[in-house]
Amino acid sequence: MKQQKPKTESALKVNQGIEQPPSVDEGAAQRFLNIKRKKLTADEYFDGIIRGDRTILSKAITLIESSLPEHQLMAKQIIEKCLPHSGKSIRIGISGVPGAGKSTFIEALGKFITSQHHQLAVLAIDPSSERSKGSILGDKTRMEELSNDKNAFIRPSPSAGSLGGVARKTRETTLLCEAAGFDVIFIETVGVGQSETAVHSMVDFFLLVQIAGAGDELQGIKRGIMEMADGIVINKADGSNIEKAKLAATEFRSALHLFPPTQSGWYPKVLTCSSLYKTHIDEVWKMIGDYFEHTQKNLFFDKRRSEQARYWMYETINNYLRDNFYQHEGVKNLIQQMESDVLNDRMSSFEAAGNLLDVYFKNK
Amino acid sequence: MKQQKPKTESALKVNQGIEQPPSVDEGAAQRFLNIKRKKLTADEYFDGIIRGDRTILSKAITLIESSLPEHQLMAKQIIEKCLPHSGKSIRIGISGVPGAGKSTFIEALGKFITSQHHQLAVLAIDPSSERSKGSILGDKTRMEELSNDKNAFIRPSPSAGSLGGVARKTRETTLLCEAAGFDVIFIETVGVGQSETAVHSMVDFFLLVQIAGAGDELQGIKRGIMEMADGIVINKADGSNIEKAKLAATEFRSALHLFPPTQSGWYPKVLTCSSLYKTHIDEVWKMIGDYFEHTQKNLFFDKRRSEQARYWMYETINNYLRDNFYQHEGVKNLIQQMESDVLNDRMSSFEAAGNLLDVYFKNK
Repeated sequence: MKQQKPKTESALKVNQGIEQPPSVDEGAAQRFLNIKRKKLTADEYFDGIIRGDRTILSKAITLIESSLPEHQLMAKQIIEKCLPHSGKSIRIGISGVPGAGKSTFIEALGKFITSQHHQLAVLAIDPSSERSKGSILGDKTRMEELSNDKNAFIRPSPSAGSLGGVARKTRETTLLCEAAGFDVIFIETVGVGQSETAVHSMVDFFLLVQIAGAGDELQGIKRGIMEMADGIVINKADGSNIEKAKLAATEFRSALHLFPPTQSGWYPKVLTCSSLYKTHIDEVWKMIGDYFEHTQKNLFFDKRRSEQARYWMYETINNYLRDNFYQHEGVKNLIQQMESDVLNDRMSSFEAAGNLLDVYFKNK
Repeated sequence: MKQQKPKTESALKVNQGIEQPPSVDEGAAQRFLNIKRKKLTADEYFDGIIRGDRTILSKAITLIESSLPEHQLMAKQIIEKCLPHSGKSIRIGISGVPGAGKSTFIEALGKFITSQHHQLAVLAIDPSSERSKGSILGDKTRMEELSNDKNAFIRPSPSAGSLGGVARKTRETTLLCEAAGFDVIFIETVGVGQSETAVHSMVDFFLLVQIAGAGDELQGIKRGIMEMADGIVINKADGSNIEKAKLAATEFRSALHLFPPTQSGWYPKVLTCSSLYKTHIDEVWKMIGDYFEHTQKNLFFDKRRSEQARYWMYETINNYLRDNFYQHEGVKNLIQQMESDVLNDRMSSFEAAGNLLDVYFKNK
């Protein structure tokens, strides 16, 4: 993250924490000065976030994303403070295959939402961002209008390793953004892989952006994703493409018709829009509003939130247990052999699992 | 399981294992005599199974299903012996909502298959069977013709507890049945819940039995299940229902059209049939044969089998790790509090998870 000049200097000047005298090492001295210049207490972070200070919010998110133990500890304290002030937003997951015009759509819908006097935070989950260096939202110029909008806050996907880690960071970032007063949160994700499931588990409304064409374009939807959608938008419904988009919408509607209603009792809607010409964007926002009203009324909204909070607690535990097991030296030494025995029918899957578990539990 | 008179007495008479003198306790003496009468060595079990002895096969399956450590140990030895002789079958998962006529369909298709000189084993996964006492396949009279067919072997769902346990037992039973010469295996499951995923992970072909009617009847399909299907059969296509069944087939075909092809490169087929009048049953079997040929040719068949073997190794490990954690005393004492803190926004999901992990790893 680039360093930006703090907008609110005053908050940065008080209570710098306990200072230690710098050593004679020049690098250490420089690091000390850096720390001195930036170090805030958890309370100062909290105050800044609650006040809506974007710079402090950004710094706090950087702590969440950091792998340094001291940063993690500080992040934890900040999150606990913000927690009672979080939750008051509509969280919207947005997914779609590359080429569906997701960025343009987010910009169009985002601008519409801020014009309605909402505060919008745009986050992302893209576990591939580090590897491919092609992070979604990494390039803010993709959303030029929105990134210059004082009612919008764009934050690229955290770029650290596993999906579990990235998802945790984005979920915690959501809490801070809510405490900072953002009442609409977008969580963007790529239209492939398991990241949809992670996003689906942390949003209130899951929106799938599609384009017309029952052929190759649809091939990119991962199996199962369509069934997560609370709404589908056929984008690029403009010019000569309008009829095709309408046809696609009809096809999606009849496909969705074959599925049972979602747990919410809400029937997923299929709309068409043009992000380029900004037509029918208001209808997308209306659909989300209708959903919100519907699920507030039948209490599903709170139920889903509670289930998600519980889900992430268990998911975090299960991930940790797995990581701890598969990083165990004895397990690492044996696992190749076991896999090979299983794949060559020399050992049953269950016996191989038993051998690995023996190694782990006998030699922790 | 009811005790049946062994068909092959000789195998039961040799090598009874090392006998211990009975104690004076009469119950113990009786138990000893029972053990004496039935106890086989692993080699005897193996020989019996390979010879196709149904009684010995049934007894071995009972060992798989038993929770006694000595039975589990014996079962493990038998499975390891059978493993090199297993795998030579087509494994077919069959799912469908109650009312779709699944039993009648299994009977019709099963009879057709045995008439083609195949040996058919019909197994089931129904984790609810113990609770509800309404085990699928519990009542063999549901499939009267098939249960009197000397080329068919019907075994009800194991009735022990968790889905993971039931699934493991059914998968191990599959291996024994294959070693006993059964070259077609049906694994039936109910059309609700997670059991479909388990069955899908242990079969070569997943068949969904449906009935006509785009309305209420379809509401029972669990989201995501349709996408697992390699084939869909609209059952009860007879009498005045034929046209409705054909219409339903068309609807399913266009819905499936919206999904990308499965990994196998196979496009799921939708057929109609009448299990009652045994019409078009041959086409269902032909479809399965076509799939088999297709996936043998493009090597997907073996790939799927290998992936499944690997999957069950990891699934077993992950299940065990979870069980071990959640049955830990310290975790059990704390988990209610943590859940409640998370649900009431007093603590983040991640902090709560961290607290529980601390308790577990500090006090194992």
